[in-house]
Amino acid sequence: MIEDPFEQVAFLGFDVFGTVVDWRSSVTRLAEPFLRRHGVHVDPYRFADEWRALYQPAMERVRSGERPWVKLDVLNRENLETVLSRHGVDVGQIPETELIDLNLAWERLDPWPDSVEGLTRLKRRFAIGPISNGHMAGMMKLARFGGLPWDIIVGAEVAKSYKPQPETYLKSAAAVGLPPERIAMVAAHNEDLAAARALGFRTVFVRRPREHGPAQTSDLEPRSNWDVIAGSLLEVAEVLGCG
Amino acid sequence: MIEDPFEQVAFLGFDVFGTVVDWRSSVTRLAEPFLRRHGVHVDPYRFADEWRALYQPAMERVRSGERPWVKLDVLNRENLETVLSRHGVDVGQIPETELIDLNLAWERLDPWPDSVEGLTRLKRRFAIGPISNGHMAGMMKLARFGGLPWDIIVGAEVAKSYKPQPETYLKSAAAVGLPPERIAMVAAHNEDLAAARALGFRTVFVRRPREHGPAQTSDLEPRSNWDVIAGSLLEVAEVLGCG
Repeated sequence: MIEDPFEQVAFLGFDVFGTVVDWRSSVTRLAEPFLRRHGVHVDPYRFADEWRALYQPAMERVRSGERPWVKLDVLNRENLETVLSRHGVDVGQIPETELIDLNLAWERLDPWPDSVEGLTRLKRRFAIGPISNGHMAGMMKLARFGGLPWDIIVGAEVAKSYKPQPETYLKSAAAVGLPPERIAMVAAHNEDLAAARALGFRTVFVRRPREHGPAQTSDLEPRSNWDVIAGSLLEVAEVLGCG
Repeated sequence: MIEDPFEQVAFLGFDVFGTVVDWRSSVTRLAEPFLRRHGVHVDPYRFADEWRALYQPAMERVRSGERPWVKLDVLNRENLETVLSRHGVDVGQIPETELIDLNLAWERLDPWPDSVEGLTRLKRRFAIGPISNGHMAGMMKLARFGGLPWDIIVGAEVAKSYKPQPETYLKSAAAVGLPPERIAMVAAHNEDLAAARALGFRTVFVRRPREHGPAQTSDLEPRSNWDVIAGSLLEVAEVLGCG
């Protein structure tokens, strides 16, 4: 008899940016009118990539203790000003409301085409929620924007730490009232799953080969024998008996 | 032109025990087989009332600083043992699994008949979530049990403090990313609304005249001019244009 490693699992925790939502297309689309209006000469896809590229270094300053924990929207806003400045924009001359609005792009990201239906099916068997580096209000607005049927929002803000730091996973587990072995982390990023597995979580790898566009080189394939490896959240639902 | 006090409101925070779910009928029904099996001679309704009566004093020990903040399920479990002992039960003789199971009654409470449809309608206009003294995992399981369509769970655990302490409301507001005046507290309890209003929240009173059974004397009527006064969550939805 084959043991089902998900028999005892009661909660699926999701990475969100890249795994559930397509941040690159959405940020590009939302930034394009701003860039045009202000005469910023940069391809909007490149702008989205450059903005996103500042995400890990900004969190690293928090992880390292160089600065206290702040919510992701604060980091995103700082990074926005950095990337605009690099393209010669005098940020002080941009109306504050426009900067606020552009930063809110991260709360208006389209789900991948399979996400809403996949989550809806998975929710029949498991409680579901983000274990994301996004902040709670941002995750809430993203869910309302895209129709993501979360049962709860945990992750970085609950833990006051950023993945892949262990606290982010462990405090999220404590908040949903389950030990790590009864939770599966679902992510398109090998590093995220490696950190979760090291703590005892089950792991689900979802291929998102276009997260970074057609030239993506990272996370194209699973780097370990994750418990489930799938091409979409619908496939995850099927594998876990929620088809 | 009449000003709509809810024009700027973006989030409705709900009291849950009594306002959204009927704890008394549910705890009574779930406790009855336990009491019968162990020969505890007490009316199950009275048992539920006695268990619940220990809820405020237990939280008060946390509010006063006499003990550190603990999640509500811990308090409920302690209170269960107290009330069983009062009825002559030797708690140490009861199998641990039975005590755990009985304590989980607080995560299996039926919504009032209007709750799910009322919340579903309100969710079209507002983000919604508990600002309850319940803990996050309990609120999540209660939502899955009853089909409560929350967007987010905030409240006591997010704040590490129990209502009506100001931190519970203010840290919940911070977590949803809104100032108090853009949030309405929805509750069947005047004290809850008074605490919220003092901090700048909008207020919605829902009459729940049978929360404590047919002999209820508390909170039968609004004690102040709350912004909305209604007989059900469906009526709240109607008043707020989500009919």
